[in-house]
Amino acid sequence: MFQEPVFELHRGGKMAVAATVPVTTREDLSLAYTPGVAQVCQAIAADESLVNTFTWVANTVAVVTDGSAVLGLGNIGPRGAMPVMEGKSVLFKQFGGVDAVPICLDTQDVDEIVSVVTALAPSFGGINLEDISAPRCFEIERRLDEALPIPVFHDDQHGTAIVVLAALRNAAELLDRKLGDLRVVISGAGAAGVAVTKMLIAGGVQSENVVICDSQGIIHSGRDGLSGAKLDLAHTTNGAGRTGGIGEALRGADVLIGLSGGTIAEEALAGMAPGAIIFALANPTPEVDPAIAARYASVVATGRSDYPNQINNVLAFPGVFRGALDARATRITENMKLAAAEAIAAVVAGDLRPDAIVPAALDPRVGTAVAAAVAQAAVKDGVVRKA
Amino acid sequence: MFQEPVFELHRGGKMAVAATVPVTTREDLSLAYTPGVAQVCQAIAADESLVNTFTWVANTVAVVTDGSAVLGLGNIGPRGAMPVMEGKSVLFKQFGGVDAVPICLDTQDVDEIVSVVTALAPSFGGINLEDISAPRCFEIERRLDEALPIPVFHDDQHGTAIVVLAALRNAAELLDRKLGDLRVVISGAGAAGVAVTKMLIAGGVQSENVVICDSQGIIHSGRDGLSGAKLDLAHTTNGAGRTGGIGEALRGADVLIGLSGGTIAEEALAGMAPGAIIFALANPTPEVDPAIAARYASVVATGRSDYPNQINNVLAFPGVFRGALDARATRITENMKLAAAEAIAAVVAGDLRPDAIVPAALDPRVGTAVAAAVAQAAVKDGVVRKA
Repeated sequence: MFQEPVFELHRGGKMAVAATVPVTTREDLSLAYTPGVAQVCQAIAADESLVNTFTWVANTVAVVTDGSAVLGLGNIGPRGAMPVMEGKSVLFKQFGGVDAVPICLDTQDVDEIVSVVTALAPSFGGINLEDISAPRCFEIERRLDEALPIPVFHDDQHGTAIVVLAALRNAAELLDRKLGDLRVVISGAGAAGVAVTKMLIAGGVQSENVVICDSQGIIHSGRDGLSGAKLDLAHTTNGAGRTGGIGEALRGADVLIGLSGGTIAEEALAGMAPGAIIFALANPTPEVDPAIAARYASVVATGRSDYPNQINNVLAFPGVFRGALDARATRITENMKLAAAEAIAAVVAGDLRPDAIVPAALDPRVGTAVAAAVAQAAVKDGVVRKA
Repeated sequence: MFQEPVFELHRGGKMAVAATVPVTTREDLSLAYTPGVAQVCQAIAADESLVNTFTWVANTVAVVTDGSAVLGLGNIGPRGAMPVMEGKSVLFKQFGGVDAVPICLDTQDVDEIVSVVTALAPSFGGINLEDISAPRCFEIERRLDEALPIPVFHDDQHGTAIVVLAALRNAAELLDRKLGDLRVVISGAGAAGVAVTKMLIAGGVQSENVVICDSQGIIHSGRDGLSGAKLDLAHTTNGAGRTGGIGEALRGADVLIGLSGGTIAEEALAGMAPGAIIFALANPTPEVDPAIAARYASVVATGRSDYPNQINNVLAFPGVFRGALDARATRITENMKLAAAEAIAAVVAGDLRPDAIVPAALDPRVGTAVAAAVAQAAVKDGVVRKA
């Protein structure tokens, strides 16, 4: 059992801790540990901001999950989630130089998660929330963002939203369209669907031109039983007051963004406007087969590495946190996310093709470009603490 | 400011996270992250014990503090404590090969600490509690030990106790005395004082032959206002029913173990039995100057690296956790601690001298010897989970 390469690779885990100072002589020990360390402790006790200078905290991020919505696997708990959080931590290091620590929590209670992460906060320079189910993720992020003096970022929402905006911007550019003219359908109103909607609107899509579908069909202001984020969106999107299912939503639409995990029938696609853009981002099975999508769309993207135009969060989160940590940001603002999207788009803007609207996931230029843009936006927004 | 070597060494912290698998090609990414990682997540979700095989968890320890009793500096809070926790983590790696993560908590409430650490537990293979003040540390450790399926160890208590027992065993051997015959005075009834008392009794010292002093003097069963651990000790120690101060306690005593941080006058030492043993372990200032102690004792030890016979916890904690993790221990038993003490003592048992009753802090033989002994004791005690 477990002889396949993927299990062999995972045996013993994917990460380790390393000392960055020597501890081999008595003199080393007396500097890195007692008695020397006491001076450093006292300096920090006298001025707490020095924790960012004389410990690893300022370069660290906790990758926090409760295991409630892991990949497409659902609620598999904190232990089942650990390989993803480790993988994420490894990517943080590789693409952002960030020291990330996976924290898988043995609770799915919102109040408890908020109080645990709040208690942990002095140990980290940022909090990356991961794979926490909607709508709980919205409240957890909002409360932590308000409570903590460090950046809090739910990657399933904002990482996805940043990369989708970058991709849509380049797709529109390639097709000589303006974001403000596009009619956009979002299929899925979970964490990613809600965040992508908000980000696209912040990025230039007209809110009345967005139609969102969940498992019950189009979200509109006359629909019963809506609450929270969906209720808010019912009032700001869907200016034409469409009702019905995905077929009705897509009639005449320019853009389909699938974030649902379901499937979308070919008939529905047939109603889209000519020269459409289709992002079918469910993983591992896109909502629409890319070959079928190509019959109706000029640009097609998926979440998969084996098709062109992979919408992969790794384009965003390492650079977002690298930039936020470098700028000593206290939070991550809308402008910082917009700057990240622009930076990702800009990396390939000079060489756009229908099968190359975003950089490759492993493109080494992306992390540094995103970090620089995010840090600059943090300074501009004035959300940086003093040195 | 902060130009001294100790601050230069601490700039940017003392540790980092490292990937142990490659993530440079698309193929790497599809194994270490999506889509491949999903298979590993599903396997763990189906059998949670596999988290120990396919993630880094089984080799990790959280070094947890609330910053309430840091070194001799007192309650300097979680940020002030971070350099110590990082130093400890570095020593865990160097001497035990353990991946330790410093966790400094923004709460000093016992219930909250217990619930936060309980929530974190799926992320770690063990919990090392550190620099938490007495008597809170006793309750926190007891409740976590009961609640969690992984080893919980308060190093200020048990690490110190293990090394003191090892040192006393070798000192007695050197002086041709039996532990069961020694009259022992413990100065200090905090975390270390209580744990050392219990460990020495478990290791062969007769409980009635131990006299403990706190800031109010000798602990005896007739004293008012005692509670918790001190009340328990009042009934089991001090068989002769001594009362008074440290001077009365030391009259005719064979051993003084200072764990108080105060000072002990030379007059008091003068009352000790001939050929005495004095461990003055307060850091950085021993309760008794070693030169003065030597006038009354045949063997003197301190907590300092610049005197012979340094009683340093680093002799214990890396090997204790290495052994516990290797054995897949679910807790740390009395026998495991006794085995650790024996193993430390045994490393230098063949070459005992008054200035060499314990191995040097950096002796590379100690960690592996302690680990082997602790693992064996865990198996013998049956506190190991199935593979």
